[in-house]
Amino acid sequence: MKIAHVAAVALLLAGTSYAQQPQQEATPPVPPGARHVPDHIVPVPDTVSPQMQAIIAQPYNPNWNVVPKSPGEWKAIVDKAAAAVVATLPEIREKLGVTVQPTTIAGVKAFIVTPKVIPPHNRDRVLVHVHGGAYVLSPGEAATKEAIELAGFGGFKVISVDYRMPPDFPYPAAMDDAMAVYRAVLKTTKAKNVGIFGTSTGGGMTLAMVLRAKMEHLPLPGAIAPGTPWSDMTKTGDSFYANEMLDNVLVSDDGFLHAAALLYANGHDLKDPLLSPVYGDMHGFPPTILTSGTRDLFLSNTVRVHRKLREAGVEAVLQVFEGESHAQYYRDINAPETKEYNAEVAGFFDKHLGR
Amino acid sequence: MKIAHVAAVALLLAGTSYAQQPQQEATPPVPPGARHVPDHIVPVPDTVSPQMQAIIAQPYNPNWNVVPKSPGEWKAIVDKAAAAVVATLPEIREKLGVTVQPTTIAGVKAFIVTPKVIPPHNRDRVLVHVHGGAYVLSPGEAATKEAIELAGFGGFKVISVDYRMPPDFPYPAAMDDAMAVYRAVLKTTKAKNVGIFGTSTGGGMTLAMVLRAKMEHLPLPGAIAPGTPWSDMTKTGDSFYANEMLDNVLVSDDGFLHAAALLYANGHDLKDPLLSPVYGDMHGFPPTILTSGTRDLFLSNTVRVHRKLREAGVEAVLQVFEGESHAQYYRDINAPETKEYNAEVAGFFDKHLGR
Repeated sequence: MKIAHVAAVALLLAGTSYAQQPQQEATPPVPPGARHVPDHIVPVPDTVSPQMQAIIAQPYNPNWNVVPKSPGEWKAIVDKAAAAVVATLPEIREKLGVTVQPTTIAGVKAFIVTPKVIPPHNRDRVLVHVHGGAYVLSPGEAATKEAIELAGFGGFKVISVDYRMPPDFPYPAAMDDAMAVYRAVLKTTKAKNVGIFGTSTGGGMTLAMVLRAKMEHLPLPGAIAPGTPWSDMTKTGDSFYANEMLDNVLVSDDGFLHAAALLYANGHDLKDPLLSPVYGDMHGFPPTILTSGTRDLFLSNTVRVHRKLREAGVEAVLQVFEGESHAQYYRDINAPETKEYNAEVAGFFDKHLGR
Repeated sequence: MKIAHVAAVALLLAGTSYAQQPQQEATPPVPPGARHVPDHIVPVPDTVSPQMQAIIAQPYNPNWNVVPKSPGEWKAIVDKAAAAVVATLPEIREKLGVTVQPTTIAGVKAFIVTPKVIPPHNRDRVLVHVHGGAYVLSPGEAATKEAIELAGFGGFKVISVDYRMPPDFPYPAAMDDAMAVYRAVLKTTKAKNVGIFGTSTGGGMTLAMVLRAKMEHLPLPGAIAPGTPWSDMTKTGDSFYANEMLDNVLVSDDGFLHAAALLYANGHDLKDPLLSPVYGDMHGFPPTILTSGTRDLFLSNTVRVHRKLREAGVEAVLQVFEGESHAQYYRDINAPETKEYNAEVAGFFDKHLGR
């Protein structure tokens, strides 16, 4: 006992492997090598702002496991959700001094999101925004929250794409719309002066747009900012399991999220790089800033893309916010973390976009 | 019910807050806002190399909760541990073509770690290495593994500091030794050409050395690479709780790790920035590359330092490896992730150090 004890301690923290030990018991049986993490309590961290503590303290999004049964059920959820978001926007626009103008670009609905002052070095720059919401939520004006923030905090003109969504318009309608707007923007703005950004689904689309621009031999944007991208729609990646029931926004892939993936894919392979861009070829990508949180169900979706970009020789920056679940970094414009996130992304675009 | 249901879904993935819901039940009672994460299984990810899968599949370090009761018990563990590590080194030195020469610098024991070939642009550069091991493990040659790797993969001359440790020499002996070597190196090498790196305790010491260099008005190194730094010794930070019993190396703060912290601190305040550098003033820090893993108990220790450096305007790079627990990124020199880690750190030093 003494010898085994000492030999095992021998390797504690020393960076080498130690002898195989019997796996601890669990019900159901634990697959070989899998970790059985016992029931445990994770307190609200005191290492984030009070505003972020309040967000982290919220209970699970109570509808993470709702699976709508018909197009009508999807639409009812989507419409009510959009109305709730839209109600919050006037105050945010007002505080940040941003105006939002609906328009149509190349036949696609969009919003021109404009800050009160565009500094001279941003006058010939445009950001294209693709919103989040599992490819089904946030139609219309509900799409614009993140665009308002970056316009306001960063002093950029932003075009937010109100792309078509299922149940009426599954893949590839959303991507077709986003690409149509990108092509239209290229007619008036040099590609190097164009940035693309979005969170969650919008992060996945941002990456997929660059993959598609490569396929279509379009000039690539000057820089991109995919936030916690839905880069893998197949529940592949460690944090899908490790952060399950810890992330209070997505909570788990097994519920609304997976149902939305199937609704959007409409029979297409979920591993197609235009749906799950982590499987795409990222050589030649523009400079990229990625953001996630330590509790994010998509932490692996984010770091896997970061590693893949770095392996492809791309200038890729990663930031991971303490204690945050999915996409909480832009939740509250009064939280210092939200200002910090927007300042980082704005600074990254300023550094890398042409003028 | 229908209305509450719809209103709640309304905000799913939409980035806004939803109404407070009753907290789910747990035993013991869950503090307000705390997350009660149920018992769950985290499989070995198939998103990492086979070599890394084998490391991730290992059971808990069986001695994470061993608390030695006397100096004799500490020393017995340390000596046996060191012998086990040293036994692995000849093969690593051989494979990487690195020689290790014991020496004494300013009265401090150290090792000169030299690759077969030092490329011309690295001839006037030196890296100072401070090893990991909870301030108590890895005396002598056992300290050199990480130094051998970066010398071999990166083509750098490395000086690995064999600093004094408790139980005989608690804080500040380790820091005094590391600073004595740094001062000595500055006599022959320009500070801008000097890098400092280390993992875990070595990551914490790397940060603390810059804090102390600032206090002592020494010129600062050209760049630093603190890997998964023990930047907070007080079990403060979300991943101390979120990744508890998930990380198979450190497993939990409540055991060997906390005992080692108290042994080293020897009555000093654990929140002193020279012990827990996350509490230090990081303005003026040199370019910094930080590394962690998604399962790392020190993920928060890493990202908190990253955010703090960025807030202070420092060029700070973060990389987080998929599925990895504490310090597994340099575990196996045959794993692609280990080569990638060393290539990233070597490239960062090459980019930022003077020539």
